[in-house]
Amino acid sequence: VPVTSPAFTVRSGAGDYSVEEFGSIGAAIRSVGAGSRSVYLVDETVASLHAADLAGALPAERTLLVEASETAKSLEALSPLVCRLLEMGIRRDGTLIVVGGGTLQDIGCFLASILFRGIAWELVPTTLLAQADSCIGSKSSINVGAYKNQVGTFYPPRRVLLTPAVLATLPWDETRSGLGEVIKLQLLAGEGGFRELMADLERSSIEPSLLARWVRRSLEVKKTFIETDEYDQGIRNLLNYGHTFGHAYESATHYAIPHGIAVILGMLTATRISASKGFVPRDHYRELRAMLQPWYRPYQARLRGARRDEIFRAIRMDKKNSSNAINCILTRGFGRMEKCTVDLEAEVVPVIDDFIADETTDPDLS
Amino acid sequence: VPVTSPAFTVRSGAGDYSVEEFGSIGAAIRSVGAGSRSVYLVDETVASLHAADLAGALPAERTLLVEASETAKSLEALSPLVCRLLEMGIRRDGTLIVVGGGTLQDIGCFLASILFRGIAWELVPTTLLAQADSCIGSKSSINVGAYKNQVGTFYPPRRVLLTPAVLATLPWDETRSGLGEVIKLQLLAGEGGFRELMADLERSSIEPSLLARWVRRSLEVKKTFIETDEYDQGIRNLLNYGHTFGHAYESATHYAIPHGIAVILGMLTATRISASKGFVPRDHYRELRAMLQPWYRPYQARLRGARRDEIFRAIRMDKKNSSNAINCILTRGFGRMEKCTVDLEAEVVPVIDDFIADETTDPDLS
Repeated sequence: VPVTSPAFTVRSGAGDYSVEEFGSIGAAIRSVGAGSRSVYLVDETVASLHAADLAGALPAERTLLVEASETAKSLEALSPLVCRLLEMGIRRDGTLIVVGGGTLQDIGCFLASILFRGIAWELVPTTLLAQADSCIGSKSSINVGAYKNQVGTFYPPRRVLLTPAVLATLPWDETRSGLGEVIKLQLLAGEGGFRELMADLERSSIEPSLLARWVRRSLEVKKTFIETDEYDQGIRNLLNYGHTFGHAYESATHYAIPHGIAVILGMLTATRISASKGFVPRDHYRELRAMLQPWYRPYQARLRGARRDEIFRAIRMDKKNSSNAINCILTRGFGRMEKCTVDLEAEVVPVIDDFIADETTDPDLS
Repeated sequence: VPVTSPAFTVRSGAGDYSVEEFGSIGAAIRSVGAGSRSVYLVDETVASLHAADLAGALPAERTLLVEASETAKSLEALSPLVCRLLEMGIRRDGTLIVVGGGTLQDIGCFLASILFRGIAWELVPTTLLAQADSCIGSKSSINVGAYKNQVGTFYPPRRVLLTPAVLATLPWDETRSGLGEVIKLQLLAGEGGFRELMADLERSSIEPSLLARWVRRSLEVKKTFIETDEYDQGIRNLLNYGHTFGHAYESATHYAIPHGIAVILGMLTATRISASKGFVPRDHYRELRAMLQPWYRPYQARLRGARRDEIFRAIRMDKKNSSNAINCILTRGFGRMEKCTVDLEAEVVPVIDDFIADETTDPDLS
């Protein structure tokens, strides 16, 4: 039974799907129905942390516990999972119920899209990042060999079952990382929402109801992009704002910087490049940096571990780029992002060098 | 340049695609264009047999030769292929050109559907089975562990490039096997087409132009089914005519009986079950058997190697069936197939026992 807000619907080329809210993960799972043809794919950490809530909701003989790791979301690791699901008796008219964060979503979405050429699946996202951002949009990303996220599918679930109350139980670092995409979506939406969000976040404590509100607000923004361009051939590209440079910082620090924090650093980098090209006033960059620094500050020193050549190699390797011409999202102000091609050597390298120097020579950093 | 017939178009939910004819495999491949973003996935046997025709058409640094085997079309075998394609520089705006029979089509279709969440691909089918049947319809099938064809995608190519002249170079056994699906499609279409086909096949030699004609006629029939029901939720199921029992004969003889021949034996079995249920007169079965026997006769004795329990286990394991209630396609006459549920013990076992006894005690069999 939905407890907080009524369902809304996301339009999709593969079939519209609903987003509903529940009071707990257990309540969400029980709403799927105990059909004998349902099989459950559950993050083992979630199963352990929420054992009391989940008692009785997950039939042991049809529950597959998975570690949420980059290794587990690789093409190489999928065969044993497929075999286990088939042994458990999953059928073409069955449903795969996926419980976990973004990694479980990637694995579950991909498995559902290829089993019997596609079976129904439902998603119970358990992290802020998954609830506020990745749970809608149909995408899965899978690693292959040394290549990250080069394989995947567009395959929406039948339902998304949000449990915003659970967000209050997340470790603070994970909440902080999830806020990276929440902030990105409001920057894409325009100045009003962004300033409202930042004012809310500056409060002394972040209430569960406040997170629930910004989950909803984030999905409202993302919905407009994905409904217009589900298959990422135009305006949906803008959701990559901060990601080209953010991925490079993640990769060059060997993932010592969490994804959401890397996105914040990537958006600042994009804003600084935009300022150097005259797209926005220099003060726009300074103001954003001052507002966002409290959120990335605990990780700021880790940029010191990023080798310069690894950052630039990662940008070049990015699947959207070739040679020296870099496709990325720049900004002309709040809510005015656009896809641009910039010159790596001339327009990106000097700005990133300055950005890293500023962020890592901050006298207050430990 | 198309040489035989003008292109026709197949409507698809994922984008319409064209079917064109060319004089040789080399001519077909050259028509794709030598864009540096194209990568070629080629059956190693085709590359070897048609080396002269292909000279200059396949750039070595962007051609991946693959063995057409059940092992190669497994989920486990795909990771190295994906890595090789990425090393060769395939990009999201590139094209994968697939050259080979049904196995290469399965591998290529699946890879194209998951690389960068889907890239364009074009198909040059080189066997009779692939040209007359599997090349349209969007399906891929992939093995996982001990499970055959349980994983796959619906992902049509951008173009299908037929080369009917090549069919004359196929080994006679492969042609005979391919004819199984050609015969099935005409049985589904109605009496007129089926009798016309059988009269053509009874000629002393099968001319290349005759095969080309029946490739076209087969695709015309299949097109009506897949355009009405691309995702196999209704009338397209009828294309499985002969397959539930045929797969069981293939599996129980450890693939000593080729697919197309097994489909013929499966259709006869379905017709005999239909007769025993009173759907068709017994004479309909007898006439069909007399007409089809010349085509399966060389393989008929191999049914002796099929263990009874393996046949019934395979039928039960079929992904469409559970327990004793068997979903299969039965017939009420030419062009009047329908999906039925029959009782394995009561309605299938006795008929198959009689069928196998008749086919394996034929006094003329060696």
